[in-house]
Amino acid sequence: MINIGVIGYGYWGPNIVRNFSSIEGAEVRSICDMSSQSLDRARKIHPSIPTTQDCREVLNATNIDAVAVITPVSTHFELAKRALENGKHVFVEKPFTATVAQAEELIELAEKKRLTIMVDHTFIFTGAVRKIKRLIEEKALGDLYYYDSSRVNLGLFQSDVNVIWDLAPHDFSVMDFLIDEKPSAVSACGKAHVNCLEDTAYITVHFDNNMIAHFNVNWLSPVKIRTTLIGGEKKMLVWNDLEADEKIRIYDKGVTVTNRQSSYDLRVSYRSGDMHAPKVDQVEALRHETEYFLTCLSTGERPENDGHAGLRVVRLLDACNQSMKQNGRSVSL
Amino acid sequence: MINIGVIGYGYWGPNIVRNFSSIEGAEVRSICDMSSQSLDRARKIHPSIPTTQDCREVLNATNIDAVAVITPVSTHFELAKRALENGKHVFVEKPFTATVAQAEELIELAEKKRLTIMVDHTFIFTGAVRKIKRLIEEKALGDLYYYDSSRVNLGLFQSDVNVIWDLAPHDFSVMDFLIDEKPSAVSACGKAHVNCLEDTAYITVHFDNNMIAHFNVNWLSPVKIRTTLIGGEKKMLVWNDLEADEKIRIYDKGVTVTNRQSSYDLRVSYRSGDMHAPKVDQVEALRHETEYFLTCLSTGERPENDGHAGLRVVRLLDACNQSMKQNGRSVSL
Amino acid sequence: MINIGVIGYGYWGPNIVRNFSSIEGAEVRSICDMSSQSLDRARKIHPSIPTTQDCREVLNATNIDAVAVITPVSTHFELAKRALENGKHVFVEKPFTATVAQAEELIELAEKKRLTIMVDHTFIFTGAVRKIKRLIEEKALGDLYYYDSSRVNLGLFQSDVNVIWDLAPHDFSVMDFLIDEKPSAVSACGKAHVNCLEDTAYITVHFDNNMIAHFNVNWLSPVKIRTTLIGGEKKMLVWNDLEADEKIRIYDKGVTVTNRQSSYDLRVSYRSGDMHAPKVDQVEALRHETEYFLTCLSTGERPENDGHAGLRVVRLLDACNQSMKQNGRSVSL
Amino acid sequence: MINIGVIGYGYWGPNIVRNFSSIEGAEVRSICDMSSQSLDRARKIHPSIPTTQDCREVLNATNIDAVAVITPVSTHFELAKRALENGKHVFVEKPFTATVAQAEELIELAEKKRLTIMVDHTFIFTGAVRKIKRLIEEKALGDLYYYDSSRVNLGLFQSDVNVIWDLAPHDFSVMDFLIDEKPSAVSACGKAHVNCLEDTAYITVHFDNNMIAHFNVNWLSPVKIRTTLIGGEKKMLVWNDLEADEKIRIYDKGVTVTNRQSSYDLRVSYRSGDMHAPKVDQVEALRHETEYFLTCLSTGERPENDGHAGLRVVRLLDACNQSMKQNGRSVSL
Repeated sequence: MINIGVIGYGYWGPNIVRNFSSIEGAEVRSICDMSSQSLDRARKIHPSIPTTQDCREVLNATNIDAVAVITPVSTHFELAKRALENGKHVFVEKPFTATVAQAEELIELAEKKRLTIMVDHTFIFTGAVRKIKRLIEEKALGDLYYYDSSRVNLGLFQSDVNVIWDLAPHDFSVMDFLIDEKPSAVSACGKAHVNCLEDTAYITVHFDNNMIAHFNVNWLSPVKIRTTLIGGEKKMLVWNDLEADEKIRIYDKGVTVTNRQSSYDLRVSYRSGDMHAPKVDQVEALRHETEYFLTCLSTGERPENDGHAGLRVVRLLDACNQSMKQNGRSVSL
Repeated sequence: MINIGVIGYGYWGPNIVRNFSSIEGAEVRSICDMSSQSLDRARKIHPSIPTTQDCREVLNATNIDAVAVITPVSTHFELAKRALENGKHVFVEKPFTATVAQAEELIELAEKKRLTIMVDHTFIFTGAVRKIKRLIEEKALGDLYYYDSSRVNLGLFQSDVNVIWDLAPHDFSVMDFLIDEKPSAVSACGKAHVNCLEDTAYITVHFDNNMIAHFNVNWLSPVKIRTTLIGGEKKMLVWNDLEADEKIRIYDKGVTVTNRQSSYDLRVSYRSGDMHAPKVDQVEALRHETEYFLTCLSTGERPENDGHAGLRVVRLLDACNQSMKQNGRSVSL
Repeated sequence: MINIGVIGYGYWGPNIVRNFSSIEGAEVRSICDMSSQSLDRARKIHPSIPTTQDCREVLNATNIDAVAVITPVSTHFELAKRALENGKHVFVEKPFTATVAQAEELIELAEKKRLTIMVDHTFIFTGAVRKIKRLIEEKALGDLYYYDSSRVNLGLFQSDVNVIWDLAPHDFSVMDFLIDEKPSAVSACGKAHVNCLEDTAYITVHFDNNMIAHFNVNWLSPVKIRTTLIGGEKKMLVWNDLEADEKIRIYDKGVTVTNRQSSYDLRVSYRSGDMHAPKVDQVEALRHETEYFLTCLSTGERPENDGHAGLRVVRLLDACNQSMKQNGRSVSL
Repeated sequence: MINIGVIGYGYWGPNIVRNFSSIEGAEVRSICDMSSQSLDRARKIHPSIPTTQDCREVLNATNIDAVAVITPVSTHFELAKRALENGKHVFVEKPFTATVAQAEELIELAEKKRLTIMVDHTFIFTGAVRKIKRLIEEKALGDLYYYDSSRVNLGLFQSDVNVIWDLAPHDFSVMDFLIDEKPSAVSACGKAHVNCLEDTAYITVHFDNNMIAHFNVNWLSPVKIRTTLIGGEKKMLVWNDLEADEKIRIYDKGVTVTNRQSSYDLRVSYRSGDMHAPKVDQVEALRHETEYFLTCLSTGERPENDGHAGLRVVRLLDACNQSMKQNGRSVSL
């Protein structure tokens, strides 16, 4: 039995508590939040779990094996560090930390203490992303050409981070999971219209090979879009996360160059075949992820979404901010 | 009666001939193409119009007042220059020219000769774009925040220009028409997967004011997308050119900052009201444009889509290529 | 304070309990279900509400003012009757009863006892239906031409009623609410493919005036459709309940007859103007309905969705079954 | 070489002339229409084809082998009869004739004269319908459960026939082609809102086996719908003719009854697997059909869409009118 303390019961914390408290082998022993209203909500749904406004009660508790840090990013480092120092495993909301240095320090600390860090890259536990991963591994798409993601909607404005730090961690963590080749550089442009933090941004991620990736994140869109196009040499796919049933559509489409004698003799022919929408697992991703956390703790397996994965995402976010300050200049990773 | 010679009868030329030959006040006197097959097609549909494979027959003809240059961009300058030198008005396919210097030279020549240049920025004559223009002029959207365009599909690969020069002229000419403020710089990133020309590219256009514009152009997409989002302070709109009936949707949505004492006290509230899809004129844009060409010739009015408009688009295209060569570095305009 | 007992805690019961227990002025005093598993679920979410497997404990309880009957339709009559006999108001799931005679008996009993019956016609409390009602009352659509509804999906098969009794009560109750004119006759055709109850059915409802209504209900559709078209003389609308935001689209479209000298001289002209998607209230319909139940109890107001509304729906359902047995013969109401 | 005369050059005639005049082995020798404006249009596009306002010039011409009758339905019988009497094959617009008796007389006459009748059931030559036919023949869908078609839009009102005779021939001819089992009875309900002819109608077609078919046809819909759902025991499909690319979607979905001991013990389980959108032939259907007409004439093969197929559609249309007059009473076929 793994005993868990959850710090942070705002927007996402309730889902963490609900999942950890409903799976076999875990028990939530404490819920902490600075807001007494949040704790009221917690007690109404989980009357048997003790609550506190003092995070030290969780961080120092002797009956707690792992701490879930579900707070604003600016507090992740301090809370995770204390948890690790106290010998507790850490499950931490994304993005992992506010700086690259913080992520590196936490990874080192966890390794020294032989503790597990899992960063909550929820999307990599969805049926859709798992299915895409399998397609890529089986080379069904062939060499990858591009990864093009749009994640736009109206709000929610964050008061502490810009739209890239708010929305792009989802997409960066998915790309990091799907694509083995590591990014070489980032260019990002953004604009702050409503306050001093960028609410609209465009990010290009460069690779040393044939790939290019792009991310459109926007808090000011009248329509909600959650679409990723992945183009490959053999097949192409569209992942539309807003579709109820057919989240992935795989197109047997492509281009063939049939004559390369000279660039003027170029003959390009198109292939356009069937479309296929495979059924994907509909189980809540967080259910898989919380169970995987327990598995990793009990087997000692290092999670796919460990501190290093979290660090890679933070590096990308950090490079975005640097690039934005220089009007989109390419920042090497 | 304006007598018109058309050079180039490939993909787009037939539409030019059909429109000029069916409106009042114009007559197509000659169709020229290097391909005899193209001329066979022309004669089948327009048996009464003479055809030739020698462009000099059009450029030197004494019975021709205006030459339509509907050929690959690399030939625009030479053909348009000769036409102007021979005292003929010019209607030229977009993009106007292959270089900024060429565009400037043609503009100067036309002004000296008091001749008219019209660049075929067809989209600015669509009902949808005209309607958006009116909304912006009436300040219905308020201050503009962003202009975000996607124009992606499978093919057609061009053998002489990259995807930016192929697809972005549509969007640059529309943006140039809609937005009074002129761009200050461009960042572009692209990748050539199939041959040596970029087939996938992302362009950010910077302005000195609050605006940011972005263009996603791609020849390797499994799905066709023709969507532009325009976000404003008061309202936001989506222009989906693939919709049969409701090409424009105007959303009464926005964001209000209600407290700016400090960035930590920020209160952002969302406004989300009705959606409205105004009926737009469905007349073929090229019909309006060819009639407008005649009007400009007879009144001496300078076209909105004159050589200067064409030059502004070429400047953007040229800056994109420069920026791509430097991995997305911002290039001033 | 109104004290409520809820009988039936299967699929829909939890929503009833959640709403009645979270609004001001009501308290759920007892939850009854024959299944101990259902009661386990109830106690987990509502640990302070007593539960029982014996419905008499609810029906006879002296501390209960109103009974919510959220059980299969075959049991509605018996449970509602006992509740009324014991002086309790009744909130009963749709369809009201299994037969016309049962509905009439309950109405009479409630009137004699001066008790309130509310039939859970939830959809008439949605923002979308409320908005359509207002449009019709304001004559925005003009005279109504047709009401055309599709409610199809895969499953859920009921073991006690056919697809008409399962799905059409939603649509019949909405139509009954929206349209003042009362139906004159019903024709229905259906087919039972999987077991002995019809799983696919088509219903036409006739009116004495210009209106016609049609309902397509199907448990065997691969896609989920929840769409109603309402055509009027002046405007037409589409209500798509699966849309997240724009559930209602109002089209300024219509037909005008400009010449009626003879049927052969007929000139019909089409009007096609803007489309408008008004914002609609997104509050949970059941929240409005449960509050309205309390209001009716405290003011003595007769609910719009009273026993008579429930009876009108049961009459339509009953006529459908009669018509189906006679291969679609029109059955007068 | 087959020489063809075309009578009727209104809405559809130009497509007939264009196809017959562009395929190998046929030549259009004459175009006839009562309207001189129509003939002006014909001469503009086909300057070499003679035109006439007198149908006798076509019907009596010695250099014509086959007559295409592309006129209003009320004239089909007279024109086709004279053509057959004069020894000419007949290609006739759908619906074949205005009455069952007329269709029977033409069939008999053609058989006596050993001439071919082809009724222009264009849709059965589309790639989509051909693909569905193959799926049904291969038993991919299993036993068929239902055929549910919607064909609605705004206009065009016909002045001589109701909406059933205008729109349902498309769907009846497709159903007749796809489904071997023949219909046993028809129930139809409709309403005339704008003039004396029904503009909104609902048709149920009964079969002796497990199938049921339904057709929703409407001239007064604000939105255009062209969708057919076909439900089978093993798979289900949606044919959306308005989709550019994915006209057919095949769903690996179904229902299995796992326990039939008693109707109360019924256990129904759902199967929900992948969706597949096969590529379908995009060649113009009329191209295939006109070529098939020539093939039938040269080989003597009896067309699938012969007079008997035309008669079966007319029988259904006729039964619809009878049923509508009796408020939807089932009319046996």
